[in-house]
Amino acid sequence: MPAFILSGKSHVSLSKPARFDDHLELAHALADLSGRAVLPHFRRGLSIEDKGSAHGFDPVTNADKAAERVIRRHLAKVAPEHGIIGEEFGASVGAGRFNWVIDPIDGTKAFITGSPLWGTLIGLMDEGRPVLGVMDQPFTGERIWSGRRGTYWRVRGAPDRRVKTRACPELGAAILTTTSPDLLGPARNQQAFQRLKSQVRMARYGGDCYGYCLLAAGHVDLVVETGLKAHDVVALIPIIERAGGRITTWEGKSAEAGGRILAAGDASLHDKVLRILTG
Amino acid sequence: MPAFILSGKSHVSLSKPARFDDHLELAHALADLSGRAVLPHFRRGLSIEDKGSAHGFDPVTNADKAAERVIRRHLAKVAPEHGIIGEEFGASVGAGRFNWVIDPIDGTKAFITGSPLWGTLIGLMDEGRPVLGVMDQPFTGERIWSGRRGTYWRVRGAPDRRVKTRACPELGAAILTTTSPDLLGPARNQQAFQRLKSQVRMARYGGDCYGYCLLAAGHVDLVVETGLKAHDVVALIPIIERAGGRITTWEGKSAEAGGRILAAGDASLHDKVLRILTG
Repeated sequence: MPAFILSGKSHVSLSKPARFDDHLELAHALADLSGRAVLPHFRRGLSIEDKGSAHGFDPVTNADKAAERVIRRHLAKVAPEHGIIGEEFGASVGAGRFNWVIDPIDGTKAFITGSPLWGTLIGLMDEGRPVLGVMDQPFTGERIWSGRRGTYWRVRGAPDRRVKTRACPELGAAILTTTSPDLLGPARNQQAFQRLKSQVRMARYGGDCYGYCLLAAGHVDLVVETGLKAHDVVALIPIIERAGGRITTWEGKSAEAGGRILAAGDASLHDKVLRILTG
Repeated sequence: MPAFILSGKSHVSLSKPARFDDHLELAHALADLSGRAVLPHFRRGLSIEDKGSAHGFDPVTNADKAAERVIRRHLAKVAPEHGIIGEEFGASVGAGRFNWVIDPIDGTKAFITGSPLWGTLIGLMDEGRPVLGVMDQPFTGERIWSGRRGTYWRVRGAPDRRVKTRACPELGAAILTTTSPDLLGPARNQQAFQRLKSQVRMARYGGDCYGYCLLAAGHVDLVVETGLKAHDVVALIPIIERAGGRITTWEGKSAEAGGRILAAGDASLHDKVLRILTG
């Protein structure tokens, strides 16, 4: 580790290794806590409240709020200097350079319909840059996270497995996913998606954060979405980048603020697809 | 059990209780075997063969074939008089009244993209009528089946839970699912789906057999699909009916031959939706 510090290399996404390890341990602890808060609500009678977004039915569950509350409580106790940006309760500014970006249940619609394709997203930003991400799926017992040297996937008791995106330089061989073709927004977005879809091997729907993780693990090649918020995407950026993939806005800018997002497992495919989406 | 036999009631879907229990035990054994055959292939390098259906990319995996082979071998050993209708290897006619209808991986596209929303379908027909069904998801460790008195859902070590469809008499409150809006076939089917979709609370995509099981467990209200084969639907009929739901073709006829299928958790909603689909 001294070698790392002494090398003088700019390694902005990892800061000090020891600190990174502490933060990763904290992220795992937050995922454990949120899983325990969320799981008792899954497939049980839910109190659903309609936030009434522009896209229609947008439920918020008690589970969502319970998980964010337990995460906030733990952070306030063990890292009071850290800021928190959560989906349900907004932002609380910290005194330091680190901010946690939390989506307790990414994929609320999956959650309330009993599908396991939702997850808890826990991301950490260091002076505005995403440096660490965890996606936790407590029902299937899966967790994927960006470690110091790569991205890892855990399934229940099985050993952690390092995962990587797969090579897919040809668009015609690519598998594309998006959460729903109904969520693409304005006509120009829908047209862009159709343009892309007509050139890929296969399109699949459903998934929210789960789709990005499948990309990080080399099972799908492209995720295209619109209207994402920071809490939908910050945790996923290090997961995808450290697995070898690339994630930006459709404009090719950094993804941490959300918006229209493109993730590609193969960086060369990413460039091609950006041109199709914005062409 | 003598009381049952002596009652003289016509109970076509269950035949003799003792025999039903034997068949259910056999179905569970087949699900155990297929799960062990399939799971090692999930999220591993796959040998994918394109069957080239009208809908484009239709992959068949080694896992699919391995599972059907192990199921056929076991049936040949313990129930040689039973017939088998499988997705991969066609029909072998039995000497008796019972025929197993098998889809080793329903949701092959989910399977090859790493999504857990696929399942093994094991159905039993008695003189052409579905009498018993099992859906097994070996990755999440879930199994749903039609027992003698109802439909049951097992999640890994947890106790079996009886599940029921939920009441949803109002279309405007209904959650609708279909595997993909791209799989609806001709324009008239797509228009029918759009007509229905515009009147429900929410539409969700993805799921194959998993969607029907979520309906049986009261998490969604409607499943609408087209182009199903017998092996896609036979196992699901007893699962849905014994949970309190209704499943027919869009023409209101029995569903066991496949085709355009409508499943509803609430029978009164089923009638309304049939009129919308065929109107």
